[in-house]
Amino acid sequence: MTRYALTLEYDGRPYMGFQRQAHGPSVQQAFEEAAETVVGHPVTLHSAGRTDTGVHARAMRAHFDSEKTLPPFRMGEALNARLRLAEQAVAVLDCVEVSEDWHARFTCLGRSYEYVIANRRAPLVLEAGRAWRIAQDLDAGAMHEAAQVLVGRHDFTTFRSAQCQSASPVKTLRHLSVRREGDHVIVAAEARSFLHHQVRSMVGCLALVGEGRWTAADMRDALEAADRRRLGHNAPPDGLYFMGALYPGE
Amino acid sequence: MTRYALTLEYDGRPYMGFQRQAHGPSVQQAFEEAAETVVGHPVTLHSAGRTDTGVHARAMRAHFDSEKTLPPFRMGEALNARLRLAEQAVAVLDCVEVSEDWHARFTCLGRSYEYVIANRRAPLVLEAGRAWRIAQDLDAGAMHEAAQVLVGRHDFTTFRSAQCQSASPVKTLRHLSVRREGDHVIVAAEARSFLHHQVRSMVGCLALVGEGRWTAADMRDALEAADRRRLGHNAPPDGLYFMGALYPGE
Repeated sequence: MTRYALTLEYDGRPYMGFQRQAHGPSVQQAFEEAAETVVGHPVTLHSAGRTDTGVHARAMRAHFDSEKTLPPFRMGEALNARLRLAEQAVAVLDCVEVSEDWHARFTCLGRSYEYVIANRRAPLVLEAGRAWRIAQDLDAGAMHEAAQVLVGRHDFTTFRSAQCQSASPVKTLRHLSVRREGDHVIVAAEARSFLHHQVRSMVGCLALVGEGRWTAADMRDALEAADRRRLGHNAPPDGLYFMGALYPGE
Repeated sequence: MTRYALTLEYDGRPYMGFQRQAHGPSVQQAFEEAAETVVGHPVTLHSAGRTDTGVHARAMRAHFDSEKTLPPFRMGEALNARLRLAEQAVAVLDCVEVSEDWHARFTCLGRSYEYVIANRRAPLVLEAGRAWRIAQDLDAGAMHEAAQVLVGRHDFTTFRSAQCQSASPVKTLRHLSVRREGDHVIVAAEARSFLHHQVRSMVGCLALVGEGRWTAADMRDALEAADRRRLGHNAPPDGLYFMGALYPGE
């Protein structure tokens, strides 16, 4: 049995999220079906994060176990060939062999996301489904300042979806920054793990700050209330990208 | 009669190029049909450049004449509303009123393009149809050096398609640069005007240089031969973006 660790890129638009669903396509199913034709037996893909419908990944980390052993480079090439044949919007960026104690989800030390806001009036064409368009001029500096309120160990109940299955609402947000690049405003977030919808919920509230409707103090009040009804706004999935994960020894 | 000057963004993938075609969708037709519902009479869209099938625009400059006069901002909003309703991959980024001696094609002083190469092994997912994937490591420095051979006034017959309708193969290339940004290699080109397929032909040959199969001297030989049979390679449309145009007084 050989464990392969993968770095995956995917476009979230055709999928009902990462995780296999009974009633629609998923990244997991797309990958597993491709892998099964390569290795000749059922495969389970484990990932660092389980992104929602419409959320993208630039570098999702994942693994699967194979009874067929190929050199990792050839395995990656074979998987990409099958994924292309099936016209899936998933690609293997990297494939390496790892020991059986390496687990994409359970040994992961950190996850990072970026959220892309296209701050412009015109409807999105080249970025349709790939960014959140906000027409009103955003104050990225004020957003960055308010973001610092959220950094650290907090009860993030306000920023948690009703479907969240995490045992505790307390998480440590290591990094949250907001930067402007031309007509884009980019929010970067890093933590060991996130609650369901946490990044999109934080971004929704940061957008209110950027529009001048919330202050950093409103952000602090919302956080301290630990009450989902205090959530200002949930950002759409379009602009969210899983950017990377960190493992011991990296 | 009011003349509106526009800046347009479009995704080239759904269209058989900018120019109206008898047998397929075009950017021109998409825009003209949207505009006709707004102004209530037939409209002709004139543009700075007529891009090929699959070529994109970040800022195409164009104009049309309208018997109905709206404030430019409202005209832009109305056009975008119709384009969205028709699910077209075209958006109006800017709309201003100009005098009748302003012509998107005939008064244009310069056009600029960028060509995006994704220099990576894995198939493209997030950039499918939006970049040219080259797996072999490219030497962007060597490409930039070879690009300088082409800058200036030359007979570009080697880099001209058989369908080119330009009166002369002599053009002045004002700028041609190659830069690396992570795993992307970006070619930027600027001239008053280009021959048909000129940018894609130049990029195709620059890629040969990047792969070490051509030298700057080979590029010079190909240029000086003024012979289409000496063309090394024509890059696909996917990576080509019309980036902007320049007019008197700008």
